[in-house]
Amino acid sequence: MPEPRGRPRDTRLHQRILEATRELLALRGYAELTMENVATRAEVGKKTVYRRWPSKAPLVAEAVLDAYGRAGSFPVADTGDIRADLRTWLGEHAEFVAEPPNSTLIRAVIAAAAASHPDSEALYEQLNAPQYNGLFTRLHHAAVRGEIRADADLGAIANALIGSLLLQTLTQSHRPEDRFDGLLTALLDGVAID
Amino acid sequence: MPEPRGRPRDTRLHQRILEATRELLALRGYAELTMENVATRAEVGKKTVYRRWPSKAPLVAEAVLDAYGRAGSFPVADTGDIRADLRTWLGEHAEFVAEPPNSTLIRAVIAAAAASHPDSEALYEQLNAPQYNGLFTRLHHAAVRGEIRADADLGAIANALIGSLLLQTLTQSHRPEDRFDGLLTALLDGVAID
Repeated sequence: MPEPRGRPRDTRLHQRILEATRELLALRGYAELTMENVATRAEVGKKTVYRRWPSKAPLVAEAVLDAYGRAGSFPVADTGDIRADLRTWLGEHAEFVAEPPNSTLIRAVIAAAAASHPDSEALYEQLNAPQYNGLFTRLHHAAVRGEIRADADLGAIANALIGSLLLQTLTQSHRPEDRFDGLLTALLDGVAID
Repeated sequence: MPEPRGRPRDTRLHQRILEATRELLALRGYAELTMENVATRAEVGKKTVYRRWPSKAPLVAEAVLDAYGRAGSFPVADTGDIRADLRTWLGEHAEFVAEPPNSTLIRAVIAAAAASHPDSEALYEQLNAPQYNGLFTRLHHAAVRGEIRADADLGAIANALIGSLLLQTLTQSHRPEDRFDGLLTALLDGVAID
């Protein structure tokens, strides 16, 4: 996410627009959000919004990424224990998503991505990529250090973790955290009997 | 999904309404679909639609389940080889989802579920439950027969499989089928080195 540039007043304006975007997303969802509505709610001119974002997709992406950022961005920790680090990451995410304002925000973005708006795929990729890349990098380190097999399909594992969280968000089934132990046991230890 | 009852004419009517629902979903998405629009498109009275479905959520659910049914419903096969059966199931689903009309339909339903319509959770559960239950039952048989560990978290594995497919649908990244081998290797064999 690019840092807002320039003077403090610009930074405040920038933040006000992002905040207005999040509020409108929560109230009406992606489909009904317009650049005009955002400008009105942020009490700025329409041109001020368009000067910063060419369309609503990148605006929404930055607004949601900014909310993630405020909550700490959820980088994947690297304590040298891949199981513990993935469990921490899953737990932090599940906790973040379980908060109603965050849940509404994330569901709005999923709705946007799923609704096949012309730029929704780029939007989803932009939101998904940091999580995917963070997991992939952490798994790669684990493979290099011999914690997990060198031939493991790191992308498939990252997607299974993100996909499980996504399903939990959609069904709003906030399971006890020990649910993740079962997922991690399967992914790391396997469940097959030879 | 309940079988349409009564005379052949009723069955034809029923199918025409489901077909009109799918067409409208593809054209406009869930949010814009109304019982009135469906009736108009199916060339039936509004009462005819309301007599069969109290609201659009169960109508949409049946229309999408019906499309799945026509494509074979994707039961999880039981050949005695859990790895092969899961791979077949994942491949069939990925192929189904990759077809643009099906993809549009499924994305519309995900959008509906994510958009927090009052009944969207029930809708999503109705669509997800058959897949989840099918996978769970198949995994349970594998556990009973000693193919997989008795203490495996079957729900977590089912969700990892469904979640991975869901993510693929949302990002429209139709990976080569061998992607599933990496996922299944992780889930069944594990990737950790002791």
